[in-house]
Amino acid sequence: MANRKANSTIQEFPLIRGLARQFARHAPGLIKGIGDDAAVVEPTSQTWWHITTDLLAEGIHFDFKSASPQSIGYRAGMANLSDLAAMGAVPRYMVVSLAIPKTLNSSHIVKIYSGLMDACHHDRVALIGGDTSASKTGLFLNITLIGTTPTQQALFRHGAHVGDLIYVTGTLGDSLAGLRLVLPVHRGRRSIRRRIPLSSAHQRFLIDRHFHPTARVAEGQWLNQQQLASAAIDVSDGLSGDLRHLCEASRVGAEIEIESLPISPACQAYGHAAGTSPVQLALTGGEDYELLFTAAPSARSMIEHQARTRGYHVTCIGTIRPKRFGIQMSSGGKTQPLPVTSYEHFH
Amino acid sequence: MANRKANSTIQEFPLIRGLARQFARHAPGLIKGIGDDAAVVEPTSQTWWHITTDLLAEGIHFDFKSASPQSIGYRAGMANLSDLAAMGAVPRYMVVSLAIPKTLNSSHIVKIYSGLMDACHHDRVALIGGDTSASKTGLFLNITLIGTTPTQQALFRHGAHVGDLIYVTGTLGDSLAGLRLVLPVHRGRRSIRRRIPLSSAHQRFLIDRHFHPTARVAEGQWLNQQQLASAAIDVSDGLSGDLRHLCEASRVGAEIEIESLPISPACQAYGHAAGTSPVQLALTGGEDYELLFTAAPSARSMIEHQARTRGYHVTCIGTIRPKRFGIQMSSGGKTQPLPVTSYEHFH
Repeated sequence: MANRKANSTIQEFPLIRGLARQFARHAPGLIKGIGDDAAVVEPTSQTWWHITTDLLAEGIHFDFKSASPQSIGYRAGMANLSDLAAMGAVPRYMVVSLAIPKTLNSSHIVKIYSGLMDACHHDRVALIGGDTSASKTGLFLNITLIGTTPTQQALFRHGAHVGDLIYVTGTLGDSLAGLRLVLPVHRGRRSIRRRIPLSSAHQRFLIDRHFHPTARVAEGQWLNQQQLASAAIDVSDGLSGDLRHLCEASRVGAEIEIESLPISPACQAYGHAAGTSPVQLALTGGEDYELLFTAAPSARSMIEHQARTRGYHVTCIGTIRPKRFGIQMSSGGKTQPLPVTSYEHFH
Repeated sequence: MANRKANSTIQEFPLIRGLARQFARHAPGLIKGIGDDAAVVEPTSQTWWHITTDLLAEGIHFDFKSASPQSIGYRAGMANLSDLAAMGAVPRYMVVSLAIPKTLNSSHIVKIYSGLMDACHHDRVALIGGDTSASKTGLFLNITLIGTTPTQQALFRHGAHVGDLIYVTGTLGDSLAGLRLVLPVHRGRRSIRRRIPLSSAHQRFLIDRHFHPTARVAEGQWLNQQQLASAAIDVSDGLSGDLRHLCEASRVGAEIEIESLPISPACQAYGHAAGTSPVQLALTGGEDYELLFTAAPSARSMIEHQARTRGYHVTCIGTIRPKRFGIQMSSGGKTQPLPVTSYEHFH
């Protein structure tokens, strides 16, 4: 067992301290940021604090062969922002831990940080602390993000009621289609990129949706402030899996109308070109970072009117049913159980 | 780039969810613990929040060859508690991320968690969230701990003034001596344990200080509540390094009296038996998790009286000097610069 801060072996650490200072903005309530044993924050009164954490491991969640260091940082930031979006919270403070292998140089580290802070820029999240370590093999990145809402006002997974409508923001399946476009296929000893007959505009759109997703932070805050949603979760594991989480927490069932699923023209085109069902992509693709939420039918016109006014994209995709109904998908008047899909892994 | 939650490959995850529920106690202010996109907490008014994070990597900070899974979890918890102790904060909430390699089975994971929660038991820290992932190689453990103090009342590194006395809790060097007792020595292809002529009681004491250190949480709260200390830091990198951090933050110098360093009889005996200077162990040994703090000379009698009454062990080891004095150690009327030591690494 060794010294806890095994810092001195890594020449990049002074660099990280520099980067950390560069990105450490003075945020409301921040008493002491980087540079002491802990960061210190003074919460404003009448707030709830929302704390989320995500661990990303090289070879499991990302790979430097297919993703740039910048996009790895960016996606890590968005994954956490998306969790706060699903609570309706305003993102405020971030702590970042990095375990850095010898294979990475300072340029990689700068790009990872820069991607991460790009993701956080719009919401003015302050980097208030972190830890760095050497890693024997592979990069590990852990982010803890703290956000706030007014007290007694947040979006939980557990609030859906029978009869509520099920909504989703944006479009589904794009990220998975983008992943498949960039992932090499192994043919014997060679690994090659799949050749899919797809316009370069569609390819760019899908690949960008994969590498630069947008957490629906503004949409989450809108739903929470206006008290329009009864429950919410972000689509990080895929609609099929995340709807299941929401239904379990709310102790309800659900019926999804397959024809209503919002699928982008690019994802539709990819599906046809690759011989894959776009619906399957929409149901199982993770990392779209859209919001899945439920709302009372009486809120329908207000949700759809306000969304149009504010430029948010929301689609009603089904209805909450009693628990005994299970989780079903319907198409052309027929229903069948929504398959329990396993996640698609990198390796 | 793959699905963010690469959970399904690891059979231990249902186990972890079970463990997490088992350890999730209802803490004051906790609105929603494990099971949503974020944990939710309602801060009490007039509090400062202290946030600290630590990343521990297999092969860098610990190794399963010399440490048990239980002690790895325990030490990880203590490392974080020690950071909050140095702020004078009351530890409250914890989020834990684990990246788990295939080489670990469920029994390992249970023991790591159990060690971690043992460390947190006394302070009734609530486990409120976390993340789990597969790992290609090696265990990674990231802990974020949140604690509180009253507003405007915390121990920082930056408050030391010229003339202040320098104190340390407990004894120094024990953890490093314990590490050396358990670390094998490589002789050609063989690795063997050093044979040190030391009583088994001393050996047990030192090894226990290494594997089961005690963060000085109560001492930190006492110093903060009674406003006795002008600055504080925990001794995690070694006295020499951590004193340097405190002096840099306070923009002062320091003079340490070598004869005053609190060294346990076991560490003294180890030094003599191993042909190592106990003073060197005390100056450079990390992970003792004692508190290093400074106080105005006028507080001396109150500190020493209250420490005796409460059963806390504190020792005055020197004086804060002007910055131009540098950081010196004095012995028998002579002073010399305190060496800038590099940390002792596992490999």
